[in-house]
Amino acid sequence: MPYERPKFFHVMQYAQAADRDVVDMVSGNPDWQPPEALRDGLREYADAEPDAFQYPPSEGLVDLREEIAARRGVDADRVVVTNGTGEANYLAMAAALDRDAGSEVLLADPVYPYYPGKTELLDAEATLVPAERDGSLDPDRFRDAASEETSLILVNTPNNPTGAVYSREALRALADLAADVDATLVVDEVYDHFDFTGEFESALTLDSDRVIVTTGYSKSMAITGFRVGYVVLPDHLVDTAKTRHMLVNVATSRPPQVAVLNALRETDADYYADVRAMLRGRVETFTDALDAAGAEYTTPEGGFYVLARFDDFPGTMANAKRLIDEAGVAGMPGETFGSARDEWLRFALVTPRVEEAATRLANYFG
Amino acid sequence: MPYERPKFFHVMQYAQAADRDVVDMVSGNPDWQPPEALRDGLREYADAEPDAFQYPPSEGLVDLREEIAARRGVDADRVVVTNGTGEANYLAMAAALDRDAGSEVLLADPVYPYYPGKTELLDAEATLVPAERDGSLDPDRFRDAASEETSLILVNTPNNPTGAVYSREALRALADLAADVDATLVVDEVYDHFDFTGEFESALTLDSDRVIVTTGYSKSMAITGFRVGYVVLPDHLVDTAKTRHMLVNVATSRPPQVAVLNALRETDADYYADVRAMLRGRVETFTDALDAAGAEYTTPEGGFYVLARFDDFPGTMANAKRLIDEAGVAGMPGETFGSARDEWLRFALVTPRVEEAATRLANYFG
Repeated sequence: MPYERPKFFHVMQYAQAADRDVVDMVSGNPDWQPPEALRDGLREYADAEPDAFQYPPSEGLVDLREEIAARRGVDADRVVVTNGTGEANYLAMAAALDRDAGSEVLLADPVYPYYPGKTELLDAEATLVPAERDGSLDPDRFRDAASEETSLILVNTPNNPTGAVYSREALRALADLAADVDATLVVDEVYDHFDFTGEFESALTLDSDRVIVTTGYSKSMAITGFRVGYVVLPDHLVDTAKTRHMLVNVATSRPPQVAVLNALRETDADYYADVRAMLRGRVETFTDALDAAGAEYTTPEGGFYVLARFDDFPGTMANAKRLIDEAGVAGMPGETFGSARDEWLRFALVTPRVEEAATRLANYFG
Repeated sequence: MPYERPKFFHVMQYAQAADRDVVDMVSGNPDWQPPEALRDGLREYADAEPDAFQYPPSEGLVDLREEIAARRGVDADRVVVTNGTGEANYLAMAAALDRDAGSEVLLADPVYPYYPGKTELLDAEATLVPAERDGSLDPDRFRDAASEETSLILVNTPNNPTGAVYSREALRALADLAADVDATLVVDEVYDHFDFTGEFESALTLDSDRVIVTTGYSKSMAITGFRVGYVVLPDHLVDTAKTRHMLVNVATSRPPQVAVLNALRETDADYYADVRAMLRGRVETFTDALDAAGAEYTTPEGGFYVLARFDDFPGTMANAKRLIDEAGVAGMPGETFGSARDEWLRFALVTPRVEEAATRLANYFG
């Protein structure tokens, strides 16, 4: 099977092995605190009776699914709690492809590398559809790319790596396209808590039986290692997703589900607002320095990534390594996100040393 | 896709909804305490710095893999930490099938229902090979059943549901068969800590590059809800398993990995010996009552299941429900484990009420 391992780990390992101080802006690992109630949830769980240590329901703890359903305005039967957004996307893509409505998957370019990886794993073929220069999507490009073989359209908003927040109209047009070609639209909203526009709307509001939404708590609660996510499916795809989840993973680990449930219930809006404010500050610091370095860059509408383009320094793996060795800043090469941003490098604002990184880049390129 | 959901949950739900007191002997959920060090590991983790809450390495925490490797006498590079033994089996089966050496899977009958389920999920075909009356395997039967299409032989020892512990000679013969037909032998050893014969030997001791071993801590640490398992692969299959693990799950949840590592390091042999002694007592209590009920039954060499056959009461789903309603004892119908034990019912000794269940069965059938 020809699927490829994403390149994140390769760059992270190179940065860690470097013979100098490196500011790591490679992965999407938050460096801020999780909600205190998450820690409380774990502490309380550590004292539970033995039966609380046994299999949770395969589709997730009942209370957690009901909490999610209430917050998202959907029926709890449509929610499957997964081993992070990663598994949520895997189940969503498999459910769409299992309908035998074709084996073509439309993905936006630049693309999160796990999507084409999962596409290959599921024996389907990816077609990349370029995003616009500002990161937005033109649904007409997707319509032109679609064929009878298209069974899945997968997009991510707020977007990694472009920082774009897609308009509700664009999502509606993609859902309509999915209906027209007998396909399913999967929308990965894992960065939904990091919307700086105030205009983000979940694709669940489209209320379409052609739409699957995936998300998780990795980013919003700063717990990428907990692996708690979920998928909201239309009724007709719930059974196939539950079955695959059961056959692959049996269930999602219970202690992190308990901790997330406690954090959901006990964490107020300030926690999320404070993180957003902190990230806004980092965006400003970083992009100011990019101005000083004479770079072109994106100002994220959402998420916590900045794409930057430096003259005569394309976003190759070799240049990412050169930047680690010569400037002491580690970012992801744009070429690992498809071809549309292969001139660019992606920097994750998940370090308190954003200012130091910015200074280093300004000095190196300035 | 025609894969079927295992029937465990159906029976459990029926038992829970029953209009009377029921002794639940359906699932393999231990009712005893996990090691205290497991709880300590969780408590300590709850106070960790934010970076301890982020992605662990995809293949598992380094310290955990090294601890496992040292205990099992294998190179840590061969170990992938998984979301329970369930994912370990999924990865092992996929790795064997991804070699494109055929699409036939040989399984022992009676069979743990997840195995044919996973076989279907992976687009392969299962062939069931009957176990002997005493639960042991005759490798010649597997050789007769094998064909050019055989790419995977999957067995489980100590066995669920028969309680058999396979001899090293039988496993060696199956590994040789795998070599002869260009297949891979997967041995699921999740009940390895529940060997009552003192003669269990892991298939890892065969030191064969045709052998994959899967296991986990669900049973040995009484934490089926934690979902921490692992797979030990021969070198040539490690990459494909790691890649699939990454693309499906990204990584195994970190808090349970930390807790298990602490429990591995800090729990002495008494914990495991005490549980075995307790289970021996339950086996005796239960089988004594089966004698009184005039039933045929298996005395497990390992694991914690007893198969029982009552005259004129075959192991159908209907009879399992009748037993819940009329006797107040819930077991699994033998017909859900293939055809070889469809006259039997399986009882899991994971309740302090084994004596009560035994009395009820003796009264009902006696």
